[in-house]
Amino acid sequence: MTFIDKLSAVSVASNSQLCVGLDPDPAKFPVHLHSKPDAIVQFCKAIIDATAATACAFKPQIAYFAALRAEEQLEEICKYIRTNYPAIPIVLDAKRGDIGATAEQYAREAFERYGADAVTVNPYMGFDSVQPYLEWKDRGAIILCRTSNAGGSDLQFLNVDGKPLYHHVAKLVAEKWNTNGQCGLVVGATFPNELAQVRALVGDMPLLIPGIGAQGGDIKATVEAGRTAAGAGMMINSSRAILYAKAYDAKGEDFAAAARRVAQETRDAINQYRN
Amino acid sequence: MTFIDKLSAVSVASNSQLCVGLDPDPAKFPVHLHSKPDAIVQFCKAIIDATAATACAFKPQIAYFAALRAEEQLEEICKYIRTNYPAIPIVLDAKRGDIGATAEQYAREAFERYGADAVTVNPYMGFDSVQPYLEWKDRGAIILCRTSNAGGSDLQFLNVDGKPLYHHVAKLVAEKWNTNGQCGLVVGATFPNELAQVRALVGDMPLLIPGIGAQGGDIKATVEAGRTAAGAGMMINSSRAILYAKAYDAKGEDFAAAARRVAQETRDAINQYRN
Repeated sequence: MTFIDKLSAVSVASNSQLCVGLDPDPAKFPVHLHSKPDAIVQFCKAIIDATAATACAFKPQIAYFAALRAEEQLEEICKYIRTNYPAIPIVLDAKRGDIGATAEQYAREAFERYGADAVTVNPYMGFDSVQPYLEWKDRGAIILCRTSNAGGSDLQFLNVDGKPLYHHVAKLVAEKWNTNGQCGLVVGATFPNELAQVRALVGDMPLLIPGIGAQGGDIKATVEAGRTAAGAGMMINSSRAILYAKAYDAKGEDFAAAARRVAQETRDAINQYRN
Repeated sequence: MTFIDKLSAVSVASNSQLCVGLDPDPAKFPVHLHSKPDAIVQFCKAIIDATAATACAFKPQIAYFAALRAEEQLEEICKYIRTNYPAIPIVLDAKRGDIGATAEQYAREAFERYGADAVTVNPYMGFDSVQPYLEWKDRGAIILCRTSNAGGSDLQFLNVDGKPLYHHVAKLVAEKWNTNGQCGLVVGATFPNELAQVRALVGDMPLLIPGIGAQGGDIKATVEAGRTAAGAGMMINSSRAILYAKAYDAKGEDFAAAARRVAQETRDAINQYRN
């Protein structure tokens, strides 16, 4: 089963367009995990168990693991998802971008070592930096298009023949790079008008949409801008708002129970505006 | 001592603008290393010892280590350079690019975990994706500008207000992002005319120049296009041509001796055209 088919199937089965981001920051973990050597694994497994029923994808952010020398923990977490929730695709958020021979190594890292179903990729170095990922025919490459950070405009909004650069990236991917239906795009939630423009350019291509939750994007505006005609085609990502759901302190909730509740609420809020 | 000062000092001391790239590919290692569990470390240490006298920088490519689950070996190799050749800067070739909170993690990975002096960074997400690296005041960020691969033109050559996109990146970095003199640019050797245009835009900023050797760039044209007025400002990278110097089989040379010879020849060829 390909990444795209897997994503479609679980989106229907779980009635979800919510991607749960795994950005483990031990300083934010509940106190009882602070002294545990395997805190990252314990924390992520609990979040995964709590949110699997409402997630269309899990998105581990590799930087958080790399800074902590925790690649083996990331391997274990990915294996845990594949074993216990094989229907849910893993999107490795790595934003890699390098020339062909090096990109082949990064593809092995993502798809062989971690067993990811898809990986985020940077388009700046062009098609031959993306192509090695597409050699893995059952996997996906989700390419940065319009990002949710303030500095995203520095390059992405430059005027290329009358259109912003990110329009060209969207069209390049949709019209030239996506020859086998393996590509998606990263488009932030913080600019709904621009998200709508990208959706208009790329048909039903899946969009990974960060920027709701802690980053402040509005769910209604995001969904209305990002949905396909069928009310789908989105992986709307929330990381910190789910992982570190503050309410668990105030309400005496377990962190995983709080994460479950926030994930359900977010999934349901998304669904409210899908059609 | 800052990255830039360190680079200048060793360039003078070793009369070198040659950066030695460390892209370990065990399939290409000499036969006697094939069965060794620490083959990557042994191979890289031998290359480092053989080329240190002629190198202005070492550039480990992290993808080769990540694909092989060899982060600990990379740590050991970086530590070996810092201990034995503390004058030679380590440029971690990671081409990271992500939003602020995540970029902070990548900066920790490069500068704290691996002890790199500089790291390559992708500009597509804008200044706030670069800024966290610049918080480390003695380190450097070397930003992708014009890359040496064929697909580099897909985005970098797009027409932005009458100039190719990579001109805008060069100017952004030189005029806005490089507030503390910590930035460099990656500009490939395969397009000497374009390298000359970038040099004209950025003054004395250090340029990391891949693409000679195995990638086919011409040394004379590269040096004449990339040098500053003082005949410096370059880290001209060679990886495979040094690491896997084919002659060692034919001549019965040790692989490290062959690497030393090719590194010296390359350093000297570069110097022939510096002034």
